[in-house]
Amino acid sequence: MSDVKAPAAPDLSGWSCPLPLRDHPRVVMGHGGGGAMSAELVEHIFVPAFGGQTLTDLGDSATLTLGGARLAFSTDSFVVRPLFFPGGSIGDLAVHGTVNDLAMSGARAAYLSCGFILEEGVETELVGRVARALGAAARAAGVEVVTGDTKVVEAGHGDGIYINTSGIGLIPPGVDIRPQRAQPGDVVIVSGEIGLHGVAIMSVREGLEFGVEVQSDCAALGGLVEAMLAVTPDLHVLRDPTRGGLAASLNEIATAAGVGVRIQERAVPVPPQVANACAILGLDPMYVANEGKLVAFVPREHADAVLAAMRAHPLGASASVIGECLTEHPGMVVARTAFGGTRVVDLPLGEQLPRIC
Amino acid sequence: MSDVKAPAAPDLSGWSCPLPLRDHPRVVMGHGGGGAMSAELVEHIFVPAFGGQTLTDLGDSATLTLGGARLAFSTDSFVVRPLFFPGGSIGDLAVHGTVNDLAMSGARAAYLSCGFILEEGVETELVGRVARALGAAARAAGVEVVTGDTKVVEAGHGDGIYINTSGIGLIPPGVDIRPQRAQPGDVVIVSGEIGLHGVAIMSVREGLEFGVEVQSDCAALGGLVEAMLAVTPDLHVLRDPTRGGLAASLNEIATAAGVGVRIQERAVPVPPQVANACAILGLDPMYVANEGKLVAFVPREHADAVLAAMRAHPLGASASVIGECLTEHPGMVVARTAFGGTRVVDLPLGEQLPRIC
Repeated sequence: MSDVKAPAAPDLSGWSCPLPLRDHPRVVMGHGGGGAMSAELVEHIFVPAFGGQTLTDLGDSATLTLGGARLAFSTDSFVVRPLFFPGGSIGDLAVHGTVNDLAMSGARAAYLSCGFILEEGVETELVGRVARALGAAARAAGVEVVTGDTKVVEAGHGDGIYINTSGIGLIPPGVDIRPQRAQPGDVVIVSGEIGLHGVAIMSVREGLEFGVEVQSDCAALGGLVEAMLAVTPDLHVLRDPTRGGLAASLNEIATAAGVGVRIQERAVPVPPQVANACAILGLDPMYVANEGKLVAFVPREHADAVLAAMRAHPLGASASVIGECLTEHPGMVVARTAFGGTRVVDLPLGEQLPRIC
Repeated sequence: MSDVKAPAAPDLSGWSCPLPLRDHPRVVMGHGGGGAMSAELVEHIFVPAFGGQTLTDLGDSATLTLGGARLAFSTDSFVVRPLFFPGGSIGDLAVHGTVNDLAMSGARAAYLSCGFILEEGVETELVGRVARALGAAARAAGVEVVTGDTKVVEAGHGDGIYINTSGIGLIPPGVDIRPQRAQPGDVVIVSGEIGLHGVAIMSVREGLEFGVEVQSDCAALGGLVEAMLAVTPDLHVLRDPTRGGLAASLNEIATAAGVGVRIQERAVPVPPQVANACAILGLDPMYVANEGKLVAFVPREHADAVLAAMRAHPLGASASVIGECLTEHPGMVVARTAFGGTRVVDLPLGEQLPRIC
């Protein structure tokens, strides 16, 4: 995370931020990390500026009713570096990121928009390769790209290709999945091994090697969520732990619902190559980004059946119960360590690695 | 429009572009100008990559049916420079651009998404000012910002603030407005004076003065379109002539519908300050961007009533008939000049001025 020196006396006249943004009169990389600093931007700038209850709910996607239809609507911009990495590309991410945000409301993505910001000088062949990756990922996920936009900025004002996708999908009747619905007694399930996307990006960007090549887990989760909903429409919370990792997702849920979350550290599936990379780099896998995993808060009576349905799906084959939801310590996530102790799993401040997605 | 030298031998292996993109192995500023070069990117890269009929229709927004509701869905990225200009800001544009794209399907915008790409080092106070402008414009247009995303890129890989908005809106029953519906006999109406946005941006960016300060016409057109639809749901085509100006919009409609368009040059309302600026700079007002105007193709029997309804609305007070739709010269736009001659009004190649929105 880098920092930028502020000018001697920033002009804050007319500035009505309810609380000062942590000594940062200028945006730093951590503001894009999906952690506490990102949350401060949203809480102190965007929510007061835009207003509205739907935005304040801060789910992965907004839930709306329009013309009698219950819709999920979500947006994500993608600035990942490099554009192609083991297991995927910015084109795949641009589809999966938005499709997964919709899936976290229980919605099956139907339509995507796609906005490109191209840097002058980027090869048209590269634009074509990214577009084809995006199109192929969309077809595989069963979602149609129906509207788009292209802007070009001068060389030195972009980084090759940035993409925004927004998506809309239909929420099935009886489904009401959102962070606020986490309840004491809920079982916390993760759909598979964590940390793969972040470590894959880090390894190619920094030229690190950890024995075997680490592949991003980048995938569209709509099918897995459908399999879970076939067991019961009464899933309480779904979240895909991208920027900020599992730690950020669990903290957001604990805060939104006013519940405590306790996980068993040993139960969290961390693959050896992620564990090795994190040990070398001094990172905690709980904070590393994923792009094809979800965490679910499921009523205890449905937990076994939902877990079985997840394990029967290719993207949930190594799903496991990692913890539970409590009345104690509302808003806080704790982990039982392998040695029998308990530690607080805090919301990360910024991001261990910028431009992960 | 700048150009970039290609490397000696670009590697085009695996490149399946149906036609070569005009000797441009690299993206140049003109690819973002909304003219022929933008269309080539869409036609030769994005449509083949993404597939799908809805995208191929290439309206300002896509028309969909989801859960029984007829929806319009649109996206736009905004990279305008400077961020604040006479008559508006990137925040206003981000709302009006998307609201207007939806209005051009006859839809009243209901919900917006908003994705920020911030450059490391930009003042948080500036982010706040832009966000408040965006929020105020959204409230004024009666649309709610319901979902968002923020990414941060390193200094030197952005330009302060880029914004993407996507929007969804409901299309009223019986309304079917799209470029393909232009018909010989249709009357072509423009809602007011053209060229103001482009000249306003140009004057502040280049430090030019043209007597009086030129204000952008940046405005949300949803209310004006509602007033027109109250006369008849049978409007054939609506288009907001942004990048590429009135010339680009008329050409796109002529091509999509396979009709000819003839306009009376003298009937096109060009305000004196735009005429002066264009005369000095050697530009044609027909190619200069607007952000609060629309062009309508209306069946002849409704033209008088629609024109009257437009003139009764503040944003259509100087609406005028500028031409008609013909069977002759399909796909071509011609202008009767003040001297009785006829000239072809071609699709612009790139943009006279980059990063106008």
